[in-house]
Amino acid sequence: MGGRRAKKDRLRTFDAPGTGSPYIKRNVGKFSLLDEESLELIESNADRILAEVGMDFRDDPETLQIFRDAGCDVRGERVRFDPGFCRHIITQSAPRTFVQHARNPSKSVMIGGNNSLFCPSFGPPFVHDMDRGRRYATYEDFENLTRIHYMLNSIHHSGGVVCEPVDLPVHVRHLYMAKAHLTLTDKPFMGAVTAQDRAEDTVAMVKLAFGDQFVDENCCLYSVVNTNAPLVLDATMLHALKVYARANQAVVVSPFILGGAMSPVTVAATLAQVLAEVLAGLCLIQLIRPGAPAVFGTFFSPISLQSGATTFGTPEGMQFQMCARSLADRLGVPLHSVGALTASKVPDAQAAYESSTQLLGSFLAGTHFIIHATGCLESLLTTGYEKVVMDADRCAMLEAFAKNVDLSIEAQAWDAFLEVQPGEHFLESNHTRRNFETAFFQSAISDSRSFEQWEADGSTWQHQRANEMWKKLLAEYQPPSIGKDLLEAIDDFIKRKEQQINKLF
Amino acid sequence: MGGRRAKKDRLRTFDAPGTGSPYIKRNVGKFSLLDEESLELIESNADRILAEVGMDFRDDPETLQIFRDAGCDVRGERVRFDPGFCRHIITQSAPRTFVQHARNPSKSVMIGGNNSLFCPSFGPPFVHDMDRGRRYATYEDFENLTRIHYMLNSIHHSGGVVCEPVDLPVHVRHLYMAKAHLTLTDKPFMGAVTAQDRAEDTVAMVKLAFGDQFVDENCCLYSVVNTNAPLVLDATMLHALKVYARANQAVVVSPFILGGAMSPVTVAATLAQVLAEVLAGLCLIQLIRPGAPAVFGTFFSPISLQSGATTFGTPEGMQFQMCARSLADRLGVPLHSVGALTASKVPDAQAAYESSTQLLGSFLAGTHFIIHATGCLESLLTTGYEKVVMDADRCAMLEAFAKNVDLSIEAQAWDAFLEVQPGEHFLESNHTRRNFETAFFQSAISDSRSFEQWEADGSTWQHQRANEMWKKLLAEYQPPSIGKDLLEAIDDFIKRKEQQINKLF
Repeated sequence: MGGRRAKKDRLRTFDAPGTGSPYIKRNVGKFSLLDEESLELIESNADRILAEVGMDFRDDPETLQIFRDAGCDVRGERVRFDPGFCRHIITQSAPRTFVQHARNPSKSVMIGGNNSLFCPSFGPPFVHDMDRGRRYATYEDFENLTRIHYMLNSIHHSGGVVCEPVDLPVHVRHLYMAKAHLTLTDKPFMGAVTAQDRAEDTVAMVKLAFGDQFVDENCCLYSVVNTNAPLVLDATMLHALKVYARANQAVVVSPFILGGAMSPVTVAATLAQVLAEVLAGLCLIQLIRPGAPAVFGTFFSPISLQSGATTFGTPEGMQFQMCARSLADRLGVPLHSVGALTASKVPDAQAAYESSTQLLGSFLAGTHFIIHATGCLESLLTTGYEKVVMDADRCAMLEAFAKNVDLSIEAQAWDAFLEVQPGEHFLESNHTRRNFETAFFQSAISDSRSFEQWEADGSTWQHQRANEMWKKLLAEYQPPSIGKDLLEAIDDFIKRKEQQINKLF
Repeated sequence: MGGRRAKKDRLRTFDAPGTGSPYIKRNVGKFSLLDEESLELIESNADRILAEVGMDFRDDPETLQIFRDAGCDVRGERVRFDPGFCRHIITQSAPRTFVQHARNPSKSVMIGGNNSLFCPSFGPPFVHDMDRGRRYATYEDFENLTRIHYMLNSIHHSGGVVCEPVDLPVHVRHLYMAKAHLTLTDKPFMGAVTAQDRAEDTVAMVKLAFGDQFVDENCCLYSVVNTNAPLVLDATMLHALKVYARANQAVVVSPFILGGAMSPVTVAATLAQVLAEVLAGLCLIQLIRPGAPAVFGTFFSPISLQSGATTFGTPEGMQFQMCARSLADRLGVPLHSVGALTASKVPDAQAAYESSTQLLGSFLAGTHFIIHATGCLESLLTTGYEKVVMDADRCAMLEAFAKNVDLSIEAQAWDAFLEVQPGEHFLESNHTRRNFETAFFQSAISDSRSFEQWEADGSTWQHQRANEMWKKLLAEYQPPSIGKDLLEAIDDFIKRKEQQINKLF
């Protein structure tokens, strides 16, 4: 049916989803599962784990000394905490909410409180698209995904390792990733955590953009430190944590849990363990720099105990997330958790069922910072180009949902009821004429037309339309404005660092 | 990779999803959006619509007389109700919860209270599968879909018009549909509403199975009466409503709303209109037979005001459903609403994103009776065989979610924390050994294995596995036991009715 022409027409309808507001001010509540007594039980189990089992802080004498100085029981690398100690330290100084500043001030985000935001997937070594299939990610992919996320109005954060640019030498990747986040987009982004000097480099690069004093007084980076569950923080993560905490930048302590392997096979026990690890990690942040933004992070995937595979879109995942928000609230810190995760290898129905279960569960739980909101395939080993725009459409849907029901006089539409008699229709009523342009959410990527229209237009499946959409976004991409001085400063910094690093290796 | 063999092995893993419990006893709450004051505003607008605009009851003088006798303002076919009148009549006698009896007593369902249940799609004239594509449905499809839903443990109800058997003459379809629900399954089912005599036939057939007195005293049929929104009930629907109400069988009054056409373009106004229509309909039921089960039904799809297309998986849909549950609660009747609806024509990611948004929204809203929980494609014009089993898997997930977090001593897993040291894993702990068989939900149809395993097994997309699954269920189907006398009585009844009907036409 008129191939080229029809295709062209359809392309034009793919407007980027979302309103472009910098983050979501929720006008809806959250779905809670446990009463206060049950939450106290989880908390008391976490306290017992920290007191009786303790947590290992490996290969980092300085951290052990910090805990020793704070009066904790340190034997070897094992630290045990008196019940209530970590909570006391955290609640004294950790902020309930904080702003992460974006290079473009109108895109700065408020993290915590009654707000939520969406952020791309983090860490996949592979990318997938319908043209080229699955392949190792490159820096070109990194740049393209950063550009696409800049264009997606429903995505509030530029993320961190949106894919692993495996064509760059490991020791310089962090420099180029930070450069992409500082130049190709103007949304807030994440810092490197894979080595102390890489964290330091990221802070230095952010200071080029924001100025030294501003960075020392404000959060301009948000970085995720994973525990090695169960109950271990290793030197790499501790070094990154200390760099960012000392620089007054936000640190998320996020136990990475494959349930059944890295935690017991139940939600209740996993919650207690996760809370224990988070308490110890956030306590360390507050001991290092009281008041530095510190976030309760979670990543939980039950494994199949038959195959060992990670699973997503599970009832346990939803339960876990809803309880985690309650525990974070009681601790007085924001919750960072996962979005549209799936184990599917392709942008199929499994990917969509699992991803929307995870994403809705997380959003209705009231998660403040929703990481992995877009792109995940293959249990985070892959980011899918089509999947990015498909998920972003659902993020836009949730943003509209969070406005809640408009109860204004105009929305009550009394004049429409007086104008339209029983059995008539409202399509041409004055009220509809006044409101039709803004009424009702429109998906950027669903095809809701009749079977006949859909068939005439090529009988596309959603992943085919998504393929057109990301290409259109990329084709239309225009970089945000950026000063020539800053661009040069970033390039100079990278050049100098590369020279230093090349000498070392 | 060993084609036939590998395929055979995989087939064996497709166990029907769900636990087989007759309905879901929710141990979780519901997601509410509006406070009491806002709900009162909606209610007061509904009252005002009923008092000032009124509702038309068309071509049915008896209904007008019933309202006249009750003291309502009847002018022509327009009935106006004093504010609070309908609510007063309903709350006097309509049950908050009731049991619909199944032919197999262990499958009877409790409707209302803290319970939910899933029911197939209703009404599609087309079916779709990946082998034959989209085509008009036949009675063979009707039987097959009834068999498949009988096999699906996560689906609690056999539904009604699971597809329209267009190869049967219109005037006898209801007889064969009831026969399929009475013989191929033993789950509860729905009555015909397309004509008075068809409703009467369905009641008569149910009496063959349950006995006259039992049916008069108990709910054995559950039937959905749609208003012709805005604010009309027509003779066909009124006749069916009266037959079932007089027979003490459950009637759902469900305004069928394409938002923007059959209601104003806002959620707030649509809620008021829907409540008005439901109030009038349920009031009529209680005036006819006080105490007959009467259910608050809703079907709401915002239309695209650009194309006129119905849309699903929308923020307005979720908002609407969550508010409807609150309104039903305050009226003291169960809520019947929609599940996995989509406008997609195929079992793709759009179908899954939209369906899971609708299904999760409805379930977390606390909807008691979730119709269209399985199979919907093409805005209910089509039921997809693959879609049925894909949706049923999500229903099983929600059933597991609704158990809430197990906080038992065993689930707290204290012995695991004492056994497994920091940095070790829990896979071989005694606690895991004791619990691994029942721990964690397993999807019947997701492929969560490694990319390499998935690739070696044919790189299937979910709809391909779903294709295998429904065929396996159908191949393994064994009918439930049924007495020879009942079978004969049903066949005799149909034979006699067919003769009568053939004389008429």
